[in-house]
Amino acid sequence: MASYSTSVLAHLFGIIALILMLVWLLHYQGGIEYDSDNSSRVFNVHPFLMFFGFIFLVGQAIMSYHTVPGTHETKKTVHMTLHFIAIVLGIVGICAVFKFHDMVYLVDVYSLHSWIGLGTFCLFGLQWLFGLTFMFQGTRQSRTAMAPWHIAGGRALFFMAICAALTGLMERTAMLRLLPHQRESHLINFTGLAILLFGVFVDMTVGLAHTYT
Amino acid sequence: MASYSTSVLAHLFGIIALILMLVWLLHYQGGIEYDSDNSSRVFNVHPFLMFFGFIFLVGQAIMSYHTVPGTHETKKTVHMTLHFIAIVLGIVGICAVFKFHDMVYLVDVYSLHSWIGLGTFCLFGLQWLFGLTFMFQGTRQSRTAMAPWHIAGGRALFFMAICAALTGLMERTAMLRLLPHQRESHLINFTGLAILLFGVFVDMTVGLAHTYT
Repeated sequence: MASYSTSVLAHLFGIIALILMLVWLLHYQGGIEYDSDNSSRVFNVHPFLMFFGFIFLVGQAIMSYHTVPGTHETKKTVHMTLHFIAIVLGIVGICAVFKFHDMVYLVDVYSLHSWIGLGTFCLFGLQWLFGLTFMFQGTRQSRTAMAPWHIAGGRALFFMAICAALTGLMERTAMLRLLPHQRESHLINFTGLAILLFGVFVDMTVGLAHTYT
Repeated sequence: MASYSTSVLAHLFGIIALILMLVWLLHYQGGIEYDSDNSSRVFNVHPFLMFFGFIFLVGQAIMSYHTVPGTHETKKTVHMTLHFIAIVLGIVGICAVFKFHDMVYLVDVYSLHSWIGLGTFCLFGLQWLFGLTFMFQGTRQSRTAMAPWHIAGGRALFFMAICAALTGLMERTAMLRLLPHQRESHLINFTGLAILLFGVFVDMTVGLAHTYT
């Protein structure tokens, strides 16, 4: 029950973050479009896909063991499939920011955000491959032995992805040279808080389920 | 054993982060001093105390149940005392940044970093008070019932404190107008990665201990 109520809160803050981000990108930042001549519209693909495509779906995948009805196999398939979709959308999101850098002649991969983000994404790919290997190749004993590490590793990577999102919002705020207490910077801050609380409640859903069982 | 090895990694990355931060603040940023006419030296008290005084000590307090030898009562006293020292040092660290803002006529509490940081710190104070009340007033049953929530809440707040640290490093990098791929910005990035890995391994130490027992 405890993990059910935290998963409801996770959904609430995830959807709030999505709405706030869409208001920011569509109303203040001119829209989202990969094939545009407007560099800002190309950039906007990055925060949208990294949050809604990657972090939000990964959060759903993590919670699937507690939210999806059906057998353990069903939950596992949902968990694996959502992660696969998230990784594909994440790759497109990362391509978008490199395309933006090319358009405005900016250097790549110099900020703390980019280091955390790319590092986390690569480790995520590895974690997914490990998980897939165990799903099809591992024995029941080896799966049981690996489970605590898979869970701890997955939670750590999700935590790192949230850090990447928040440092990314900080970087964009600095790049846009927004003034303190401007309406748009408040909107970005509230988006960041909602993303953080989404992360907290997804993590709590897993944590409480494990402490109570 | 699993939680022992992750606590060793937590110490390793915690100490690396501390060394890198000291090199940054002492060598590149002119030193750390609360009562200085140099605003930069006053500012430097903030990252130093928020990391070494607050986050590092809170991490030690969290791990104390798995690293401190002795009875459960001893571990609990260490856990509570370290948190108390961390909160006191954190208050001084927060005062330092407000003093810095006054010195350079900057507005307060407008950035995502400040919102996450102050929000987390206030909730931390509440969590400590709740913990203290239960330590002295609660019955054995009520303590057992509250434990999963205390652990989940504490882990969430620690996660939020790491996010505050990383967004803080991003804010300072932007404020100092460091160029991409400058030596100092690389140093700050490595400090950030070490703080992130400290957070990850402290959290894993708790997580693995709970999944294995």
